[in-house]
Amino acid sequence: MSDLSTLVQGIQAGNMRALARACRLIDERDPCAFELLKRIFTHEERAYVIGVTGTPGAGKSTLVDGLILLYLGQGKRVAVLAVDPTSPYSGGAILGDRIRMQQHFTDEGVFIRSIATRGHLGGLSRSTGDVLHVLHASTFDIVILETVGVGQDELEVTQLADTTLVVMAPGQGDDIQAIKAGILEVADVFAVNKSDRVGADATVQDLQQMLALRRMPTGVGKMQGHTAVSTLRAAPEAEVGEWLPPILKTVAHRQEGLADLVDAFSKHREFLTTTEAGKAIQAQRQVAEFRAILYQALIDAVDARFAEQLSEKLRDIVDGRADPYSSAELLVRSAMGESEP
Amino acid sequence: MSDLSTLVQGIQAGNMRALARACRLIDERDPCAFELLKRIFTHEERAYVIGVTGTPGAGKSTLVDGLILLYLGQGKRVAVLAVDPTSPYSGGAILGDRIRMQQHFTDEGVFIRSIATRGHLGGLSRSTGDVLHVLHASTFDIVILETVGVGQDELEVTQLADTTLVVMAPGQGDDIQAIKAGILEVADVFAVNKSDRVGADATVQDLQQMLALRRMPTGVGKMQGHTAVSTLRAAPEAEVGEWLPPILKTVAHRQEGLADLVDAFSKHREFLTTTEAGKAIQAQRQVAEFRAILYQALIDAVDARFAEQLSEKLRDIVDGRADPYSSAELLVRSAMGESEP
Repeated sequence: MSDLSTLVQGIQAGNMRALARACRLIDERDPCAFELLKRIFTHEERAYVIGVTGTPGAGKSTLVDGLILLYLGQGKRVAVLAVDPTSPYSGGAILGDRIRMQQHFTDEGVFIRSIATRGHLGGLSRSTGDVLHVLHASTFDIVILETVGVGQDELEVTQLADTTLVVMAPGQGDDIQAIKAGILEVADVFAVNKSDRVGADATVQDLQQMLALRRMPTGVGKMQGHTAVSTLRAAPEAEVGEWLPPILKTVAHRQEGLADLVDAFSKHREFLTTTEAGKAIQAQRQVAEFRAILYQALIDAVDARFAEQLSEKLRDIVDGRADPYSSAELLVRSAMGESEP
Repeated sequence: MSDLSTLVQGIQAGNMRALARACRLIDERDPCAFELLKRIFTHEERAYVIGVTGTPGAGKSTLVDGLILLYLGQGKRVAVLAVDPTSPYSGGAILGDRIRMQQHFTDEGVFIRSIATRGHLGGLSRSTGDVLHVLHASTFDIVILETVGVGQDELEVTQLADTTLVVMAPGQGDDIQAIKAGILEVADVFAVNKSDRVGADATVQDLQQMLALRRMPTGVGKMQGHTAVSTLRAAPEAEVGEWLPPILKTVAHRQEGLADLVDAFSKHREFLTTTEAGKAIQAQRQVAEFRAILYQALIDAVDARFAEQLSEKLRDIVDGRADPYSSAELLVRSAMGESEP
């Protein structure tokens, strides 16, 4: 326990080693991690989390590097969580390069950590959420949550961000077509990067059209699948729909347009914290997060406390003596202290 | 209950309306669905499930149509589940077109159903798994599980298939690069479609190289994240690695190469059912599926039985009076009939 207290102090002081150790505990699903998270959870002084996602080849990494530079120049403490959808088996080469490129930032006090998908249902966003709480309890002003690629998993991760930036480049029409549904729902700000190239204005127009066509208000899409309890429902559509994602042109490698981006982030932050619609979105996110934490804790508890029954039932199923649905029902009843029927 | 019996009989008789109704119950997470699944679950006479995924533009739909034709020609009963990653809000336009195209197949007794992503963690693959059990209990010989796109979610869905076909087209080098990690792990058979185009041989060679480089044996990659209980571990590496995914060239719109594909499916099926390695893979899938069913049942039970405590705790969290981790711990203890500390 005194060891845990040291770790908590280290995190609160912004000690890089303590932060890395906490991330490792979470990553390895160490039982201490839950205890740690209970101890460090804070409602106050949270870092602002900016999710960055976008199509491959849009220059996302360069843009993130530019944002880090800009925030460092403002005297801000910055952390970067890079979410890598590649499997541990393939070595995560894409992100490896990325991390090596950013090595110089670590000298300036930027905390960089990669989180690899484990193929575990919901596991990725849950452990990312846990790591975010460690960073909230530490000394950071800004956390950049960067995803490689823009699949459904990545979109889910951006639900953990306060503000989500979607980065595209000119001439990626097909890519946009393929993923637009998800993107429209998660984007709070759009960047058309490499906007010195041909077709930038057309991409901006495409995005504008898509935004005009979309039927659902901002924020609501992000929460789909998580049923908020009735007392915490979002405000009605008209109010929830107040935020209109701006579309900004950038040339990241020349730092062009990045100050405007940061400005848009601030405006979105203001929207979240000062308007009823924004507060409703934040409350919904808290609800969704609590559910995710609760469900994971439930699963962990059943796995730990009913290990024997679980493997007994598994044997019956594999041997064809029982069906998984009835077995699940019996195990749930037994776990909840109800007698089997 | 007599209503449920009628439904069960309808499913077993291959009645299209009964099948559609069962799918709807599952889709809407109707409490009856669980009861139904318990009743219809069968260890015998299962349909063979072929997962089809691949890069956009590879001609997957045409290839699936070709496979349907081929199987129908063999007198087989065919069902198609099309998994649509687009959100309900955007209307799932891609799949809408797809379904309309396939309308003529329904006249020949092909059961076609689309399953839309709900943005729910793990929800997609779970409800797809449930629908598969309905089809297993019915009269089908072949189920084609087709995914739009090839994100992590789609790859997860293919875990539900007995045999997974990955479709690509020449000149999609970048796409392959971006997704190769996932694809190598799920593919049991590769099709290089549109192979009358320039670059087909290069794509075949790229795939061959990737397969040669991969470090992990077939099947193991698919199960990552699901820890099998010790008694059900897969056979050691050398044996698990017996299946080498064949790479076949096809021109789907001319039905070229499809018979070879079907032949490869049969060989893979034989591998799964007759070898120790194959049986281990199937057992692992059953284990993973049981865990998924169990976890969903747990979550549903807690949501239903502890609704009041849940919304109380949610209010405390949103109002900043409690942290989600401690609240989750208390609720789990209470759900499991343990006294709060």
